[in-house]
Amino acid sequence: MTQTQRQNRQWRLARRPTTTLDDEVLRLETEPVPKPGEGQVLVRNLLLSLDPTHRIWMSDMKQYLPPVEIGAVMRAGTIGQVVESAHPGFRPGEIVAGMGGYQDYQLARGEELTRLPWDGRTPLSTYMGLLSFIGVTAYQGMLEIGDPQPGETVVVSGAAGAVGSIAGQLAKIRGARVIGIAGGPAKCAWLTGELGFDAAIDYRAENVRARLRELAPKGVNVYFDNVGGEITEAVFDNLALNARIPLCGLISTYNSGKTGTGPRNYANVLMQRAMIKGFIVIDAMPRAARIYGELATWHAEGRIKYRVDVRPGLENAPTALRALFDGSNEGKLVIEIAAPSAAA
Amino acid sequence: MTQTQRQNRQWRLARRPTTTLDDEVLRLETEPVPKPGEGQVLVRNLLLSLDPTHRIWMSDMKQYLPPVEIGAVMRAGTIGQVVESAHPGFRPGEIVAGMGGYQDYQLARGEELTRLPWDGRTPLSTYMGLLSFIGVTAYQGMLEIGDPQPGETVVVSGAAGAVGSIAGQLAKIRGARVIGIAGGPAKCAWLTGELGFDAAIDYRAENVRARLRELAPKGVNVYFDNVGGEITEAVFDNLALNARIPLCGLISTYNSGKTGTGPRNYANVLMQRAMIKGFIVIDAMPRAARIYGELATWHAEGRIKYRVDVRPGLENAPTALRALFDGSNEGKLVIEIAAPSAAA
Repeated sequence: MTQTQRQNRQWRLARRPTTTLDDEVLRLETEPVPKPGEGQVLVRNLLLSLDPTHRIWMSDMKQYLPPVEIGAVMRAGTIGQVVESAHPGFRPGEIVAGMGGYQDYQLARGEELTRLPWDGRTPLSTYMGLLSFIGVTAYQGMLEIGDPQPGETVVVSGAAGAVGSIAGQLAKIRGARVIGIAGGPAKCAWLTGELGFDAAIDYRAENVRARLRELAPKGVNVYFDNVGGEITEAVFDNLALNARIPLCGLISTYNSGKTGTGPRNYANVLMQRAMIKGFIVIDAMPRAARIYGELATWHAEGRIKYRVDVRPGLENAPTALRALFDGSNEGKLVIEIAAPSAAA
Repeated sequence: MTQTQRQNRQWRLARRPTTTLDDEVLRLETEPVPKPGEGQVLVRNLLLSLDPTHRIWMSDMKQYLPPVEIGAVMRAGTIGQVVESAHPGFRPGEIVAGMGGYQDYQLARGEELTRLPWDGRTPLSTYMGLLSFIGVTAYQGMLEIGDPQPGETVVVSGAAGAVGSIAGQLAKIRGARVIGIAGGPAKCAWLTGELGFDAAIDYRAENVRARLRELAPKGVNVYFDNVGGEITEAVFDNLALNARIPLCGLISTYNSGKTGTGPRNYANVLMQRAMIKGFIVIDAMPRAARIYGELATWHAEGRIKYRVDVRPGLENAPTALRALFDGSNEGKLVIEIAAPSAAA
């Protein structure tokens, strides 16, 4: 097979979603795999990271990066393998992380890629979970902003998700009492069982407001918010004085269309002298090397566990993405596009 | 006139307000002036401070002090003169600050009173304006939380109010560019004229969102929020990255009944990595002596100006209180109950 015969499947943004993600939002196209020009690297994408923020990038709401343009390949983090390099820093066969998008192959400038120290055995998906922007996000929000103290009560929404599950374990490491909010008994059992959360609330079956009042009679000191909406309102009704609220995401509102709603009990932020801090992992990446070191140590000590929900096939990416919004993913959601090759 | 003949008029909370303040909320009663018991001080109230937070205290919403009970004298800060003392620390004729409430006389424990260093000439209302919790609130919110840097853009809502007008001038002292939002051309002219604000937006006549886009093309770095509601939404659409939002009050929402609304564009807090901090002056009072010193110096240097809207007659307190909510007060709102007496 010569390179000119290779085809590159690409999911391109066809239409901005207004509410839920339907089949009209992404369109599958195929084009020949390109040749790298001077300073460029051709990468075969192996793993595709599916994240809640993709829903933001698809929209034209005010956001922290430019929205993906209509007709462009959908943006996403990827791990891939160098196929051909016209950049002195990369050789074929090397494993690299980058923003390769929803496609089989990417053409990247060398500066856009980070070589991973892959030993050939560790699951590559590790670099899409704990030791990726996922772990840094959890660390930044929980330890740098929330800063839980021993004995304080911490609540995490989206607690069984990729970021939330790590965030809660970081609060446990700090000696806090941790309550997770998640959807369904299986996720809740995972939180209190394997992950060691002190309690879990199933927002589908329980009254979150009432359960929080029982579980946190002195109020919530740190609320790591991944979801927004009614769950956040329930927590806002149970804030302790001087509560800290790292605001990581608002996934419950992304599909709701243009006119969002803020927490109706926003006044409690004033009454409880609470602090809310919106944060984006980009701002913490300069500290990522140190943070990866701490996370890897805690992982090796068995103090942080995580799981990755790997689903096969680039063709399934749009369907899999919806799992983030109906809560059916189990941990960090990844599409496996291809396996690494010994002879690239 | 003997003391037993003295009558004490009292505004008592008759009914919790649901929306606007009507004539049914406070009820005027009269009872004989009481005699101080051991450790108590009888104080003739001279000045009554009318503040937006009274609307909170009247309600049973979640709040930072216990709500005023139905039938109790309405709580308020006062300045008064000692009439009779059974406490070794106070003598008749002394001027004291306290929480005397909406009444002619209060019976206070000595620990509840603070003696003022009154020279007999300075208007007593000074101690209800800059050198009171008003000034401390502005200092705490603007300098301790907002922390504006030279050249940054600062927006103050309720800018012509007691706290807002001082907050804006503190940001000017720090070298920031200050935009005030207020109701009506007279207030706006006062802000940009006498107080030296760089710009003012009349929210009654102008599109706040569009004007902010013009006046702050690089976004708002600090937003000192006194009002909440749609004005806050307009500012949230114009936040700079890493904006700080000292949340001082939400006066636009206090009369709106039980189901409030949070800012509909709350997601911008996430996208702009903004920080919101609710604060209550109680937390800064341990630093009040130092803060009064700084404020008094800036006032003496002509760098902070303020005005007090003094209205006569305890009987007019409920009517005057409404001015805070229709915006017709001009600066800090005070009821003059009586003049100090040379022979108490």
